[in-house]
Amino acid sequence: MYHFTALVTVLALMLYFYMAVRVSQARGKFGVKAPAITGNADFERIFRVQMNTLEWMPIFLPALWLFAIYVSDAIAALIGLVWIVGRAMYMVSYAQAAAKRGPGFGVQALAASALLVGALVAILWRMLHG
Amino acid sequence: MYHFTALVTVLALMLYFYMAVRVSQARGKFGVKAPAITGNADFERIFRVQMNTLEWMPIFLPALWLFAIYVSDAIAALIGLVWIVGRAMYMVSYAQAAAKRGPGFGVQALAASALLVGALVAILWRMLHG
Amino acid sequence: MYHFTALVTVLALMLYFYMAVRVSQARGKFGVKAPAITGNADFERIFRVQMNTLEWMPIFLPALWLFAIYVSDAIAALIGLVWIVGRAMYMVSYAQAAAKRGPGFGVQALAASALLVGALVAILWRMLHG
Repeated sequence: MYHFTALVTVLALMLYFYMAVRVSQARGKFGVKAPAITGNADFERIFRVQMNTLEWMPIFLPALWLFAIYVSDAIAALIGLVWIVGRAMYMVSYAQAAAKRGPGFGVQALAASALLVGALVAILWRMLHG
Repeated sequence: MYHFTALVTVLALMLYFYMAVRVSQARGKFGVKAPAITGNADFERIFRVQMNTLEWMPIFLPALWLFAIYVSDAIAALIGLVWIVGRAMYMVSYAQAAAKRGPGFGVQALAASALLVGALVAILWRMLHG
Repeated sequence: MYHFTALVTVLALMLYFYMAVRVSQARGKFGVKAPAITGNADFERIFRVQMNTLEWMPIFLPALWLFAIYVSDAIAALIGLVWIVGRAMYMVSYAQAAAKRGPGFGVQALAASALLVGALVAILWRMLHG
């Protein structure tokens, strides 16, 4: 079983869930009625936080689980936690200003890349030496 | 094996697939040529049905499977069916008017939340008592 | 274990990752500053390549893995490779002109549909004859 990775997955989903709630709140606060997704820069930044996180979900989640299965549950979960921290930084800083979104984005990109490359190496190793 | 959850997953993907087909049809009907995604409110609502469902997919699918693995295949599948019903209601009603999208959205949000919280509790239980 | 499917998953994620890098580069090249996602048709097409691939990820990845589990690791991986080729065609041709995006889209849609329908048939077969 992969308890640590399962737990980190739920935590990541909850942070992402919270980003969606913030978009919903921002619709009211900045007067952007559905189905519009543009028209107010403050709203757009909060919307883009959720969207960019969504864009990375199909990289993060499969890479996290392949890493857990092919390398280690505990290490996958630890790198997954780093990803969550990067995403939380990104959420807070991008909402303030687009120019501030770099560091959080970099942290999560590094974590996701480590999971992806680690999984790739481990899969190839297993296929060749398996 | 998790046959019920596997089947419900395929059904959910098929509904989502159908939402994408509707967007494609709406491009023709309302004269919104790719790559544009705005310019006609009727098109935008149909587009947002697909997009919002996409936004929830990384919550729904992982939560569904963690619930199936940590709690029960059959109960996961049942709650998954409720999610599908909510998403179908949302698809039909949001296409009519943005103001009508509430109930379907609420049903699917409740189902997804039940899966997520249920999975979280079961994972923690297993880690502590496992 | 599902080594072939795991490897094809990583390859698909890497192509998708590269699409996101192209969006980032296109922001600079065509002067579309975050959080904006519109305003330049060349940028919008490159952005839509990533977005449309994202839209299909929740169909492709779960269908790929259900097919691998219920039918065959090797066949799932082969069809997955076809999907990747279709997506690469789509990426190159859509960036040139919206009208050229058809063939690549068709190839990946066919591959994803084969995985989804194949998984559905195999799941039902297993439930009835299992």
